[in-house]
Amino acid sequence: MNGNPLGQDPGMPPTPAPDDDVVDRLRAALPGRVETDPALLAPFTADRSGHRAAGVPLAVVHAASVEDVQAACRIASAAGVPIVTRGAGTGLSGGAIAGDGEIVLSLTGMDRILEISADNRLAVVQPGILNGRLNEVLAEHGLWWAPDPASKDISTVGGNIAMNAGGLLCAKYGVTREAVLALKVVLADGTLLSVGHRTVKGVTGYDLCALMIGSEGTLGVIVECTLKLQPVDRGATVTLGAFFDSLEAAASAASAVTRAGLVPAIMELMDQRTLEAVAAHTGQDLAGRGAYLLVQCDGADAVQTADRVADLARRAGGTVDVTTDPDEADRLVALRRAAFPSLESLGTLLVEDIAVPRSRMAEAFAAVRALEEKYGVAIPTTCHAGDGNLHPTFVYDGGAGEVPEAIWAAAGELFGTALELGGTLSGEHGIGLLKRAWLRDELGDEQFELQRRIKQVFDPAGLLNPGKVFPGPASPGTPPVG
Amino acid sequence: MNGNPLGQDPGMPPTPAPDDDVVDRLRAALPGRVETDPALLAPFTADRSGHRAAGVPLAVVHAASVEDVQAACRIASAAGVPIVTRGAGTGLSGGAIAGDGEIVLSLTGMDRILEISADNRLAVVQPGILNGRLNEVLAEHGLWWAPDPASKDISTVGGNIAMNAGGLLCAKYGVTREAVLALKVVLADGTLLSVGHRTVKGVTGYDLCALMIGSEGTLGVIVECTLKLQPVDRGATVTLGAFFDSLEAAASAASAVTRAGLVPAIMELMDQRTLEAVAAHTGQDLAGRGAYLLVQCDGADAVQTADRVADLARRAGGTVDVTTDPDEADRLVALRRAAFPSLESLGTLLVEDIAVPRSRMAEAFAAVRALEEKYGVAIPTTCHAGDGNLHPTFVYDGGAGEVPEAIWAAAGELFGTALELGGTLSGEHGIGLLKRAWLRDELGDEQFELQRRIKQVFDPAGLLNPGKVFPGPASPGTPPVG
Repeated sequence: MNGNPLGQDPGMPPTPAPDDDVVDRLRAALPGRVETDPALLAPFTADRSGHRAAGVPLAVVHAASVEDVQAACRIASAAGVPIVTRGAGTGLSGGAIAGDGEIVLSLTGMDRILEISADNRLAVVQPGILNGRLNEVLAEHGLWWAPDPASKDISTVGGNIAMNAGGLLCAKYGVTREAVLALKVVLADGTLLSVGHRTVKGVTGYDLCALMIGSEGTLGVIVECTLKLQPVDRGATVTLGAFFDSLEAAASAASAVTRAGLVPAIMELMDQRTLEAVAAHTGQDLAGRGAYLLVQCDGADAVQTADRVADLARRAGGTVDVTTDPDEADRLVALRRAAFPSLESLGTLLVEDIAVPRSRMAEAFAAVRALEEKYGVAIPTTCHAGDGNLHPTFVYDGGAGEVPEAIWAAAGELFGTALELGGTLSGEHGIGLLKRAWLRDELGDEQFELQRRIKQVFDPAGLLNPGKVFPGPASPGTPPVG
Repeated sequence: MNGNPLGQDPGMPPTPAPDDDVVDRLRAALPGRVETDPALLAPFTADRSGHRAAGVPLAVVHAASVEDVQAACRIASAAGVPIVTRGAGTGLSGGAIAGDGEIVLSLTGMDRILEISADNRLAVVQPGILNGRLNEVLAEHGLWWAPDPASKDISTVGGNIAMNAGGLLCAKYGVTREAVLALKVVLADGTLLSVGHRTVKGVTGYDLCALMIGSEGTLGVIVECTLKLQPVDRGATVTLGAFFDSLEAAASAASAVTRAGLVPAIMELMDQRTLEAVAAHTGQDLAGRGAYLLVQCDGADAVQTADRVADLARRAGGTVDVTTDPDEADRLVALRRAAFPSLESLGTLLVEDIAVPRSRMAEAFAAVRALEEKYGVAIPTTCHAGDGNLHPTFVYDGGAGEVPEAIWAAAGELFGTALELGGTLSGEHGIGLLKRAWLRDELGDEQFELQRRIKQVFDPAGLLNPGKVFPGPASPGTPPVG
């Protein structure tokens, strides 16, 4: 058993117990909550990236309470066995997959809403509730939780927080970090902490709530979430769809919108390669369309904002449809929604996730085109154009999780370009296993080591999601990447 | 020399050099930038809390560049001498005051704007620029930086970030943390780190940018700030002023506004005790006024929102003025602006800063009244009612910084009440020296120790702002508090 990615003194970890003992102890402490049937464990070895760990974990603990989580952590810590916390498994970076010798802590059973307060504009929920389900309930109270990853109907709130999930609305409504007030967190040794504040403001000590958000299960187990809500009334929604002859023209329209101080709720860009895939998959005639820009404006100034966006799009050479009719809006949105199903019909996908300053979007797209040439691979790309987050999607033959070396080489070049443009490896999908080989490139040596030392403060034995984020010795069964 | 609050192994710190050597070395490395005249050092021993350190620091380094900061940190670290980073000194918690044996690193000379990008809706600035000055320049570009502490015309952006400053607009526009994209930070040993992202989204590794924000100079020296901007166009502004017979009625009106899903830009509450002080100071007839609620609505829906706020205020028993006329608006706002000048004429002030969930505001005010009875002290209180942040202001006789024990006892009870109500010791002023004695009460033992270990990761020798935030051994010359 070597699940410690931190290069710690090998004399320090607790004495490992035989794996059978750990499972027996978990069973004794958590009767009926511990699953060891290999067939039922298999789903926990993969996520929606398609990446799969070799081997299966020792067991899955289906936690039903904070106390269950604490008990599981205490037992695993005493035995020196790694813990992989898991929500719905919708991640795209291999961040919640578990292999040989690891214990999965599944939180999907902890899915209750504990409090909804319109007076304080907050909700307290367990981490396993689905984002979409929560928002259904909140809507009855005139409230909503803004984070909206594409996976929202199938991903958990706890998972959204662990990854600092993004989505389509971030330029206007912020990322997950801006929508979380406080967390309860169980450390590897079972200690329960409350971090953050129930209040709008609070500046006592370091902001460990923000530090937990996006920490990918490596610092603690999020067991309760106090969420900052918004009033649901976003007024009328106006939807625009615009075709352009070229990506450059569409990107310049999007830039003009930002430069003009307009803040649409949604601004999405699709390149020609993606449009070709949609045409092939849906039978629509999109011949000669160079790019598609989808914009939605909401709030009291939706109509005025949409008018100005339409004007800017036309000036950039766009053919623009504007509508407030829900059916017509659905038609304009459907083209964007068709992107991933259409791409999936082309082959196996590696969905990348760079973000660049909004002024550099056209350069980022040009770099993607150059990579297609150099590596002979199709990389259809969609982009959250309101915030500069591109999803270059490498299409290849072969099984998911068996990404060819040439694809990784191309992806590595893409990451380098993102950094050169002042951007980042990952806008919203996180590092997990799949991008850990490049983390040091972005952080630099000093910050990389500093971050590892912070990890050690929270998890000195290195038992929480080992091998994820930081490229230490991988947990058994998870292959090195990069 | 014992500036180490962390109880570290005394064998670990670098060998201290005689203080004269340190100053000589600073002078040699930074000619013309090192001040040691005691008369010129005196202002650095106090801040706007009125608290003053005993003794004076060894020297002030007036840094003009990142390299200056690195050089000063390297020299101080080599000598084991504490470093107190300082902006404009407008803090209210003693967080940037320096005493015997310490070096002040003044950043007010680093006040340049390095970049303004409308395309990326960001600015890159040095930390010493004043918030108000920055916003004057940004306004010419149609942009603004939202953090608006009351001190904004005289406080620095770096100071705002080091304290995670709040202000009047937070319920709608967020706190400082939400308005910072990235930072450059110099560690105690002179290492330069870049944390955060220039992009809207970014999830690579732990969010050390958020961790730095509000860390009160204890983790590193902020030397460059990449700020998230907003378009300046907030549309028409509608201002409401409403008098109520009782605080409870005014608080219930404010709660009704939040519950209704309305989001004013500003919602401020003043109690009767404060109104009496304003009446005495300004000569206005406010007899029989129980409380005052000031509301400003901006954006495209300002008029509709203000109409609904006025309706809710009237239903709660308020006498309401609503205006879009700038002069009349100034008159309504002037009453609120007069609060602190009026209170200052009553005696010496200890300005407290608790925050509570918005549904508990009336209870918090009731607790303040009970403390007045119990301790025989006047505690006029204003409140950012949009976010539940109260400023109970203890009025006493005697010099600033010589807070009587009974006042601290009353303040301690107030903090306890804030925690019982689900709130916090400090909404926006920070811990500094003045509230460090109560930090553990809020964080709990485990989190308190965890936070100290995080401090050690960044600053193993404990040289950055020792004795602030954490109640370790104080730096020499700063008295224990609490």
